[in-house]
Amino acid sequence: MTSNSEANPLTLPPGIDAAVFHKFIAAAREVTGPENATIISKKEQLGKDQYLDQSKAHDMFHITGKSYFVSSAVITPRDVAEVQAIVKLCNEYEIPLWPFSIGRNVGYGGAAPRVPGSIGLELGKHMNKVLKVDVDGAYALVEPGVTFTDLHEYLVANNLRDKLWVDVPDLGGGSVIGNTTERGVGYTPYGDHFMMHCGMEVVLPDGTLVRTGMGALPNPNADPNAPPHDQEPNSAWQLFNYGFGPYNDGIFTQSSLGIVVKMGVWLMPNPGGYQSYMITLPRDEDLHQAIEIIRPLRTSMVLQNVPTVRSILMDAAVMGNRASYTSSDHPLTDKELDEIAKKLNLGRWNFYGALYGPEPIRKVMWQIVKEAFSAIPGAKFYFPEDMPNNLVLQTRDLTLQGVPTTTELEWVNWLPNGAHLFFSPIAKVTGDDAVAQYELSKRRCEEAGFDFIGDFCIGMREMHHIVCLVFDREDPDSCRRAHWLISQLIDDAAKRGWGEYRTHLALMDQIAQTYNFNNNAQMHLNTTIKNALDPKGILAPGKNGIWPKGYDARKFEVRPGSLTRGPNL
Amino acid sequence: MTSNSEANPLTLPPGIDAAVFHKFIAAAREVTGPENATIISKKEQLGKDQYLDQSKAHDMFHITGKSYFVSSAVITPRDVAEVQAIVKLCNEYEIPLWPFSIGRNVGYGGAAPRVPGSIGLELGKHMNKVLKVDVDGAYALVEPGVTFTDLHEYLVANNLRDKLWVDVPDLGGGSVIGNTTERGVGYTPYGDHFMMHCGMEVVLPDGTLVRTGMGALPNPNADPNAPPHDQEPNSAWQLFNYGFGPYNDGIFTQSSLGIVVKMGVWLMPNPGGYQSYMITLPRDEDLHQAIEIIRPLRTSMVLQNVPTVRSILMDAAVMGNRASYTSSDHPLTDKELDEIAKKLNLGRWNFYGALYGPEPIRKVMWQIVKEAFSAIPGAKFYFPEDMPNNLVLQTRDLTLQGVPTTTELEWVNWLPNGAHLFFSPIAKVTGDDAVAQYELSKRRCEEAGFDFIGDFCIGMREMHHIVCLVFDREDPDSCRRAHWLISQLIDDAAKRGWGEYRTHLALMDQIAQTYNFNNNAQMHLNTTIKNALDPKGILAPGKNGIWPKGYDARKFEVRPGSLTRGPNL
Repeated sequence: MTSNSEANPLTLPPGIDAAVFHKFIAAAREVTGPENATIISKKEQLGKDQYLDQSKAHDMFHITGKSYFVSSAVITPRDVAEVQAIVKLCNEYEIPLWPFSIGRNVGYGGAAPRVPGSIGLELGKHMNKVLKVDVDGAYALVEPGVTFTDLHEYLVANNLRDKLWVDVPDLGGGSVIGNTTERGVGYTPYGDHFMMHCGMEVVLPDGTLVRTGMGALPNPNADPNAPPHDQEPNSAWQLFNYGFGPYNDGIFTQSSLGIVVKMGVWLMPNPGGYQSYMITLPRDEDLHQAIEIIRPLRTSMVLQNVPTVRSILMDAAVMGNRASYTSSDHPLTDKELDEIAKKLNLGRWNFYGALYGPEPIRKVMWQIVKEAFSAIPGAKFYFPEDMPNNLVLQTRDLTLQGVPTTTELEWVNWLPNGAHLFFSPIAKVTGDDAVAQYELSKRRCEEAGFDFIGDFCIGMREMHHIVCLVFDREDPDSCRRAHWLISQLIDDAAKRGWGEYRTHLALMDQIAQTYNFNNNAQMHLNTTIKNALDPKGILAPGKNGIWPKGYDARKFEVRPGSLTRGPNL
Repeated sequence: MTSNSEANPLTLPPGIDAAVFHKFIAAAREVTGPENATIISKKEQLGKDQYLDQSKAHDMFHITGKSYFVSSAVITPRDVAEVQAIVKLCNEYEIPLWPFSIGRNVGYGGAAPRVPGSIGLELGKHMNKVLKVDVDGAYALVEPGVTFTDLHEYLVANNLRDKLWVDVPDLGGGSVIGNTTERGVGYTPYGDHFMMHCGMEVVLPDGTLVRTGMGALPNPNADPNAPPHDQEPNSAWQLFNYGFGPYNDGIFTQSSLGIVVKMGVWLMPNPGGYQSYMITLPRDEDLHQAIEIIRPLRTSMVLQNVPTVRSILMDAAVMGNRASYTSSDHPLTDKELDEIAKKLNLGRWNFYGALYGPEPIRKVMWQIVKEAFSAIPGAKFYFPEDMPNNLVLQTRDLTLQGVPTTTELEWVNWLPNGAHLFFSPIAKVTGDDAVAQYELSKRRCEEAGFDFIGDFCIGMREMHHIVCLVFDREDPDSCRRAHWLISQLIDDAAKRGWGEYRTHLALMDQIAQTYNFNNNAQMHLNTTIKNALDPKGILAPGKNGIWPKGYDARKFEVRPGSLTRGPNL
């Protein structure tokens, strides 16, 4: 085991010296084999030696410098027993562990840990199997490395795609488990991924393995001599979420209370017919009316899926970068945006929806939808066949029927060295809320020198407003402005009573502090549970603003413009 | 404050003597006013002085004698602040507290506590307001005393019933919060009550008040000087469940981790059309084929709601008691059951479903449903108008459109002094599982000398098989046989890999112990959280088998036939 300075990371786990660190790594290698516990060298941490987009130690879209949110080592366990052993080892050494499925939490921190120098635990490298697809029960059981694309391709390869669909987010390359545990959404009627999960296998912070829901009831055919994670599970594990007693699954989402190593996901039976569509809304001010039209259609399920209202630049950015539209160095004006919309034959806002079911049902739904949106002067209605060259419409046609793509990642290249952050407040589905959030976000984007790119995703009773803050990750000033912008927006939003559903590592504390009803009672509850289940605070300290006892959160504060490299330097 | 023996309850809280008990009651009366903290006298605990069905200290359907599961006092707080104060007082005195909404948890223990002598906390007496109905957001915010009937009547009284429907269980008299936190189900498309709740206000075991989800984000218009529970909540509290960070709501269901004092519930927008129906299936053995027909229709949402397949006696018992059909003193034979079915113009199994939506949509659905069930020889199809005198069909027609009734309580009078217990295992939606559960349950019922009464409620991916064990509560032998029967069924089921979703107080330990995967890892998780949030173990000790540290569960064990009166005697 070398411990010369070249092999030492720039940033080690807090409070751990190089000797202890190398002792821990040696012990970890005993568990996983040497090839599955890799030290991230000083050079790698600085991001000089590799393409960051492939790094499992970094946030590819860093706003705080390449080497702040960075792991000291990445461990790739080969099975659940190894995950349990590594967790126990981290308790023994009191070293923070940051689990991730495959590291594609783009816009929210990627693979990077909240506490610099944590050990990255990459679950998906070896644990990447579709363990089961049950056609009758319409579900799958997957490991952390299974992406939406993998699951879809599994269905295709097994001739099941005519029976079952996967709900997919905008990009198909993310982990099903990772996305669901971060409470991501997709765009079919199964768009609420947490609602549509069923059953988890979880490694607790002390290394114990639990199966939630019906998984806690042993299968009488299970081999009692097999390790627990290999035992045949209860046949209702993926059929009924709640089991008996407290329903615990929710506490393992956006959480540092356990590592989800298996999860069930409900698949959508082929609805017997499908038609996607786009409705273009010509004027910026049509947003208000559109949202008012959408609300009753959505709550009544005439809009059967999670539809989206997208600002013109979200579509334009998929089709070309900023330079292809303008040479202006100021945020685009309304006039310029109108011109882009006209050039692309789109509206200032564009609505993407779909109809599911046999033709007579689709016909009824379409009639209602078309009539409702026709109230907006100049609204135009398109099916994908009407615009064969519209890349976004063609892509949404796939996404809304559960066919994963990566096409829409393109909008991140709106700027050179494009990177992005998401500002994602929740809102009531009202025209007033949508317009107020849009105006606020747009004004702040312009103040920071950025264009507004965003959309509204309409869930069961609320909207996820997703503002895509695209910045140049090689330009420190662009990073600083993006960081200032999101930080400002979080404060602005909280003052109006709006909160975010998810955020980047750098903003977790700030957002957690906005959820402070009754002297932060919820945070007190969260930390009480955290300290009970993880008394040494080894699992993902700081995640979603929850700091275990023994951690001084102020030491890990990240302010806009603080391009620091970590506490150990 | 008297402390003479007449005023003392038969059973006091464990480890608490009469002097301390009266001191506690005096302190509680300081909080709630003397009229809201009532000692249950010895005579009352023995159930001699009052009609037990109205008692808030007993289980009206006792299988262990009237005076085993019994409270020593019932406190009726007037607001949330008083709930908090009583919780703090219980911590101070280390006295167990058993919260309930209104006490109609029929078949599962009613108002009675798990630990004899606990203080009953009746939330619903004073806290019984519909705080808000939001038409645009299609939700209500309610207090614990609001029943399904209350909420429906509120909609009617406010001319909102043409816009919004409540999902109701079989009986409308239960608390919306109570039913949801016990994870009860209803029969419209909103039948999964936990799935369709949104946002909770919870008093933790230390008295702290939390609002979950978006409720943790303060409303900027809230009066900071008002007590927290009176502060105007965030406007998205009832629109988006998850908030930021761990999603905690599930741990407050079937739980002793908090007292839910406000809850949001999503209401179903009027679907624009409705038609209920019944399909009679003539032969006992049709169950298998029926379930196989139902499964794909349900997962694909052609069956849009939670339909039920009911055994003949479930319907027959609503229409008349046992004596009106037979003078036989043995369980009814197949031949006798066939005769009853024939007499009532029903099948041995009867399927109740509904179609929701505008006529063209209902037409498509009905065509598919009718064609599918026509594969069963002799299946007959009825709309409510075809059988105006069929009490069950007329009642289901109401229930399936969210109109609450209490008609179906009638089946409890199948036997004289009728009481009931539910045996409620979860199953895969397959003919094999349904038949196996039915055969097992029927055989065991017959062994115990009872008739089988039951139905299958088909959820998203599973069935709740609800076996209604009707017994004579005034006959100790009948109680003993019912207790033996359910205990036997729980063991039988676990051996086949079936677990129950909910149970009576007397069976909680037994069922919890069947969910014992990996050396009871889930129970270890549950008790770790319990002890962290409730270090003195004052809140609902023993609920769902979770015993706080300091409690010896064996002291509270309840075996069939042990007609004991409680540990203090």
